[in-house]
Amino acid sequence: MEALIYDGELSFTPDYPMPVRAAGEALIRMTTAGICSTDLEITHGYMDFRGVLGHEFVGIVEEAESSALLGQRVVGEINCPCNECSYCNHGLSNHCPYRTVLGILGRDGAFAEYLTLPEANLQIVSQSVPDDEAVFAEPLAAALEITEQVKVHQGANVAVLGDGRLGLLASQVLALTGASVTCIGNHEGKLALLEGTSVKRVLAGQDTSTRFDLVVDCTGSAGGFDEALRLVRPRGTIVLKSTVASKASLNLAPLVINEITVVGSRCGPLRKALDLLEQRRVEVARLITDRYPLSGGLAAFDAAATRSAVKVLLYPTPQS
Amino acid sequence: MEALIYDGELSFTPDYPMPVRAAGEALIRMTTAGICSTDLEITHGYMDFRGVLGHEFVGIVEEAESSALLGQRVVGEINCPCNECSYCNHGLSNHCPYRTVLGILGRDGAFAEYLTLPEANLQIVSQSVPDDEAVFAEPLAAALEITEQVKVHQGANVAVLGDGRLGLLASQVLALTGASVTCIGNHEGKLALLEGTSVKRVLAGQDTSTRFDLVVDCTGSAGGFDEALRLVRPRGTIVLKSTVASKASLNLAPLVINEITVVGSRCGPLRKALDLLEQRRVEVARLITDRYPLSGGLAAFDAAATRSAVKVLLYPTPQS
Repeated sequence: MEALIYDGELSFTPDYPMPVRAAGEALIRMTTAGICSTDLEITHGYMDFRGVLGHEFVGIVEEAESSALLGQRVVGEINCPCNECSYCNHGLSNHCPYRTVLGILGRDGAFAEYLTLPEANLQIVSQSVPDDEAVFAEPLAAALEITEQVKVHQGANVAVLGDGRLGLLASQVLALTGASVTCIGNHEGKLALLEGTSVKRVLAGQDTSTRFDLVVDCTGSAGGFDEALRLVRPRGTIVLKSTVASKASLNLAPLVINEITVVGSRCGPLRKALDLLEQRRVEVARLITDRYPLSGGLAAFDAAATRSAVKVLLYPTPQS
Repeated sequence: MEALIYDGELSFTPDYPMPVRAAGEALIRMTTAGICSTDLEITHGYMDFRGVLGHEFVGIVEEAESSALLGQRVVGEINCPCNECSYCNHGLSNHCPYRTVLGILGRDGAFAEYLTLPEANLQIVSQSVPDDEAVFAEPLAAALEITEQVKVHQGANVAVLGDGRLGLLASQVLALTGASVTCIGNHEGKLALLEGTSVKRVLAGQDTSTRFDLVVDCTGSAGGFDEALRLVRPRGTIVLKSTVASKASLNLAPLVINEITVVGSRCGPLRKALDLLEQRRVEVARLITDRYPLSGGLAAFDAAATRSAVKVLLYPTPQS
């Protein structure tokens, strides 16, 4: 089958071996996949991952133990826990030390014609949500996780740093809480994608004398944390969404002096994300800036790394 | 009057000008003062402070507007807010941007014969608590602040990194919550000061395969944060008490991947600290390793910087 693989370099192959379904797993034919900043980070060495990249997908279940799943259109939770260890038994299965993670850790991912995932990981997509929107379920869930971890009060002053893929989703999700949300980004064109929402838009470097109750770092860059520290009010909260492969030189003294709380935040509730998409409460389709077949995957990654890119989607290559 | 001052170098002077009491302030004759890691950090450039050092003290009120305070033995809250700005009006007076801080920021400190503080900052010390114990009220309050900021559950697995001044106090305070507390330090002699308490003692570098629900960094070193990240369980909490002047090279990705919460923590509730001292629920007198007159302040700072030192106290120089 076709696949985009990373083995120290990114490459496309037309004949990667088909994945073999383990007990409890479904075989899924990918119909749409999305490139995420984590995928780009992996091609810079993050997680030392080797194999098929990709973890944002929509697909059709072709084989499964559960007949209820057969033929269904699904998205999937990317963490695959062992379900036996003490973490799994204490509600921390997303942190199972024996877990694999789709396209990120020890498990081939979704930038291929087929992938496998535990059936328990799958969520059926409502007919009313097209593939090009459902593929946002995973990053939208990651954005929703912020509101699962931090109580965002009505009227709270919230800043989202970064106008990339995740920043634009996080801004919209946070605005749904009734908070006053400002997205601070580097790209007028990307910030413009928030038009029609209640999110205020500020170009980075413009004067922001406001200090925020909550600052969410979606910059994907090592400098985001320092900027968040500068913008958060004393006793305020910073949520870190960026996983950056590199070390940065940081001075944590302001965190102590200003009694800041920093919350690391990762994957989120997939079902709630699908519900938001079904209720059309967030704008996602307008974030798609490019579409490529898997065979054009290298060009797709190049496109996703450009300044103007937001979400780049991948599809199985049409048969000629 | 005598004073220990820092103006780029630490020095003792026998004739520093007497402090002048402003409206609402009390004039306090210092009877006992303690050297804290922050004082040592300041002599390495932290906070760019210039003036009389010191913020841990016990003293006698010699002049005040309130007659109830005159002649009383007091300790004092070190933050002096403006009481007028929006921070002060929103319960964040400890973070008032116009504040001074005793011996740390824009206000002469306690390593002198006399100091001034707003009367509202003072807490009267019970007769049953001797000076050499009451002088621990400020650092003990800082330790108590951990339990004000983070809910510590009965039976929680807690690690305190550092067996210095603050680590030994934080360990004892956390043990009072019913948590299972392990103090991890570099010095057998200091760890031994916890004998008779319920705190478990581990030499750093010994195998600690346990992962803790809560890790409190009291190392005072830039490396403490990385060690805390290594020891905390997924979705656990790190409390940072160390204010380190230098930058450190840090990788924050584990914080995101493991969804860690980091809480910066500073000063705490002075009255509650005095209550603990009065109830004799924490051991403090045994932490005193040296006593010096103000005139021996340079030697006192040298002593406080040695590996074996815990708390070094200063007193007014006896008149010959």
